[in-house]
Amino acid sequence: MADDSAFIFDLDGTLMDSVYQHVLSWAEALEAEGIEVPIWRVHRRIGMSGGLFSQALMRESGLELDEKSRTRLSRGHADAFMKRVAAIRPLPGASALLAHLTALDIPWAIATSGRAETAAPMIDKLGLPVDRMTIVTRDQVAFAKPNPDLFLEAARRLDRPPGACFVVGDSIWDMLAARRAGSLGVGLLSGGYGDDELVRAGAFRVFAEPADLFTGLFELGIRS
Amino acid sequence: MADDSAFIFDLDGTLMDSVYQHVLSWAEALEAEGIEVPIWRVHRRIGMSGGLFSQALMRESGLELDEKSRTRLSRGHADAFMKRVAAIRPLPGASALLAHLTALDIPWAIATSGRAETAAPMIDKLGLPVDRMTIVTRDQVAFAKPNPDLFLEAARRLDRPPGACFVVGDSIWDMLAARRAGSLGVGLLSGGYGDDELVRAGAFRVFAEPADLFTGLFELGIRS
Repeated sequence: MADDSAFIFDLDGTLMDSVYQHVLSWAEALEAEGIEVPIWRVHRRIGMSGGLFSQALMRESGLELDEKSRTRLSRGHADAFMKRVAAIRPLPGASALLAHLTALDIPWAIATSGRAETAAPMIDKLGLPVDRMTIVTRDQVAFAKPNPDLFLEAARRLDRPPGACFVVGDSIWDMLAARRAGSLGVGLLSGGYGDDELVRAGAFRVFAEPADLFTGLFELGIRS
Repeated sequence: MADDSAFIFDLDGTLMDSVYQHVLSWAEALEAEGIEVPIWRVHRRIGMSGGLFSQALMRESGLELDEKSRTRLSRGHADAFMKRVAAIRPLPGASALLAHLTALDIPWAIATSGRAETAAPMIDKLGLPVDRMTIVTRDQVAFAKPNPDLFLEAARRLDRPPGACFVVGDSIWDMLAARRAGSLGVGLLSGGYGDDELVRAGAFRVFAEPADLFTGLFELGIRS
């Protein structure tokens, strides 16, 4: 019996409890640029490509952000986030789930719209051998989520067809990118989206946190 | 034609863009007590009575929090929040909406599960005459949300039957308390809940922010 299942995990809000720190780091950077955006609108865009994020901002606010202020914004977010990174923890069950998949010989990867600079210190906290991990960051593909590039590249490196990959994520951008990649999206509530938002974006199943996905692996057809 | 409509507004996430600061302030206070809770679970409880919040924590974590550590937790949250309060702004349209209701002679009140200490500096930022406002805080009733006490007391002070009051809030605790008070709940997305979460909790209409409720007042039968 052949089963070529593989898993692709988003990082922020999926493996790491880092979404709210990203939200307030963006809010801080926007404030420094004099841009007023209600914070829940920032929250709903975490995980989306930074380029799309600033385009959406410009369209909504009517502001023109030149190249320089966009670079400052992105730098401001990264700096504010790095100040908060020490307090960030993995989500319950994240490390155990990944270790279990490794033990079952089920390949898995991490694919994040974040850059290697902010992703690396968080991935270290999972306490797993980083040198044996497949990690795709924003700097390695042409377009971040909700484009499918990150997930397609992850599937390619895992040597699995995208259709055999479960994409696990906490945001609607993960679910959209999963659909566009031809993968099955699994939603987690741990990024702060509601259940229905994820289902409407294409999640075929929603769990609370990685620990609940671990318990529910059977529901995805994983024999373990 | 008599119309005795009145409005009762929640504060955090409804008039003020303060939910995410509350979330990270609680996370900081919990961390200081050595209690690990994923942050989205804190978010989903903002607006709920602090007593219920710590009882839920104890049930979930299996920890016993004594009177002393619960007091420290609550103090820790208030201190962390006060450090962030300077950066907090009203949500788009909040002040304009309230001023418009006043101009229409439609009575309105603010009813919050927060204490006067944290509520007062935020209400000041609305830039409206505070001495003419009806404000009910947690210290003035026996039970906070999702019990109906805050809304019942607000209706009493406005001299309106609860059934004539629209309760505007961003959290499911507002919507539950509105139902229990016999009022109609109106949801706002600006606290970071999803549309469906609010509808399932009883919101008969959901707007994005106070500015959208202002535009949509007609949909509530407000002739203005």
